[in-house]
Amino acid sequence: MNIVITGGGGFLGSRLARKLVSKDKNAYITLFDAAFGAEVPGARAVKGDIADPASLGEVVKGEIDTVFHLAAVVSGAAEADFDLGMRVNLEGTKNLLERCRKLPRPPKVVFSSSVAAFGGDLPPELDDSTTPTPQTSYGTQKVMGEYLIADYSRKGYIDGRSLRLPTIVVRAGRPNAAASSFASAIIREPLNGVPLECPVGPQTGIWLLSPRRVVDAFIHAAELPASAWPSARVVNLPGITATVDEMLKALERVAGEKVKARVSFKPDARIEAIVRTWPVRFRTPRALAMGFKPDADAQTLIRDYIEDENIKVKA
Amino acid sequence: MNIVITGGGGFLGSRLARKLVSKDKNAYITLFDAAFGAEVPGARAVKGDIADPASLGEVVKGEIDTVFHLAAVVSGAAEADFDLGMRVNLEGTKNLLERCRKLPRPPKVVFSSSVAAFGGDLPPELDDSTTPTPQTSYGTQKVMGEYLIADYSRKGYIDGRSLRLPTIVVRAGRPNAAASSFASAIIREPLNGVPLECPVGPQTGIWLLSPRRVVDAFIHAAELPASAWPSARVVNLPGITATVDEMLKALERVAGEKVKARVSFKPDARIEAIVRTWPVRFRTPRALAMGFKPDADAQTLIRDYIEDENIKVKA
Repeated sequence: MNIVITGGGGFLGSRLARKLVSKDKNAYITLFDAAFGAEVPGARAVKGDIADPASLGEVVKGEIDTVFHLAAVVSGAAEADFDLGMRVNLEGTKNLLERCRKLPRPPKVVFSSSVAAFGGDLPPELDDSTTPTPQTSYGTQKVMGEYLIADYSRKGYIDGRSLRLPTIVVRAGRPNAAASSFASAIIREPLNGVPLECPVGPQTGIWLLSPRRVVDAFIHAAELPASAWPSARVVNLPGITATVDEMLKALERVAGEKVKARVSFKPDARIEAIVRTWPVRFRTPRALAMGFKPDADAQTLIRDYIEDENIKVKA
Repeated sequence: MNIVITGGGGFLGSRLARKLVSKDKNAYITLFDAAFGAEVPGARAVKGDIADPASLGEVVKGEIDTVFHLAAVVSGAAEADFDLGMRVNLEGTKNLLERCRKLPRPPKVVFSSSVAAFGGDLPPELDDSTTPTPQTSYGTQKVMGEYLIADYSRKGYIDGRSLRLPTIVVRAGRPNAAASSFASAIIREPLNGVPLECPVGPQTGIWLLSPRRVVDAFIHAAELPASAWPSARVVNLPGITATVDEMLKALERVAGEKVKARVSFKPDARIEAIVRTWPVRFRTPRALAMGFKPDADAQTLIRDYIEDENIKVKA
């Protein structure tokens, strides 16, 4: 197995790499990213620029089985710097697909799209027929990427599969420029003993999936036969709906009242304006029928995070 | 009024220009295209390449009120030459929007999208909530253009409006590389005394709009206030549904049995495969509420063509 992960230095990319290494010691795994943190034993790390054909050509060459395309400028950053978002999220994806098209045989391409595809004047519950109407440049660039994936697949240049990811919670590490950064921070920081100001109100609903489940989803997406996919090659992943308040109550049940009390509220109009456009509730019959799985509930999601990331809870 | 029409040398572009000149003698109208046929008195013609920033920069500069963006590689050609379609239809649109973004004030941009946005496994009747699932590269590039128009509008870089055009019938001139070329040819050629082999069967349904009505729609789209548009900035134009057989019966009623008898059937699998993916029936309540108008019926559409193009019918 010859596998490339773009964004392989990132939070999800590195965890996907570790899982792939643990599944198949003989897999040849290349991580491609602009920067890397900790090494992933058993995987090769290559620094490069996704929007530069020559740079990408150093890793996307020869017989490749699967490309996991996770590289992206996150929502908050793509909104603040339009040109950067267009360059990395749109041109980078197009560049990757052009490279894939030139390979000796069409690789599978698993594309990390986003629930940010949806926004604005939405029904109370979205489903597989809801038309993407993104209200951010990030969401727009992701939807355009999905359409590229579908057309390159239809033409036989790749065998593409796009996953619309819920907000991924709990992310380890530091807060980032994603507008959704708070959704992980309200769990992660208090568990680490760090006070956290939540920029959105307690009744803010979020559509959630854990890192553990989304890594499984990436691998499952690659393992499914092409015939399992609709012609649009995209699926809304299953998730769970929780409000900030429900997340904090789950945190209290898992780690105690003192941990939960480290979260306070300090509204940030810019973040609230972005998050308000995101959908909260989905029916995902297609993804469930295809074998994708959500987390059981918010408590399980928090417990899995503590286990997966070896968190020493500061009670 | 300072107006630019990309694709201004084409069939619709030149007719739009003539109508704009007749409405406002003082309008400064620039036609931009790779090639030009007959001159449009009162409009300036500039040859150039839509995908080349410098070339486009020669006409998209200064205070521009409205850009009508009609330039495109047609469906059959974009399917046969993927790179050309991507360059002109996707990169060309992106290039135009980048130029518009740099203007001293945001222009209105009316984008000619297409019913080819839809395809594949469709409901019997489409409506304003149907998700685009194009089955051609042309359709994919048009949908991506719509998403760019929406995001550039949301950011305040332009004031964009996308129209999904039905198949435009009757086109004057010669057959072109569009897979829909037959839909005009079955009316135009027999009226000119020329035998015509129709590449699709008589029961093939088509979703139609006349050149007269679509020119009106472009102008109406520009005249509507921004507040009349949904955040996605796109609307399915109203049309009428007719089968090839119904079109030929209308032709017979307008021009006689001898004219109709010039059409024979010679199936072309490549054309049929593309046309089969196109939708045939729509409900368009949004467009009708916004004031867009379909043709009355197939006979009227044929009579308007004879009048507008000064056709001398060869009975």
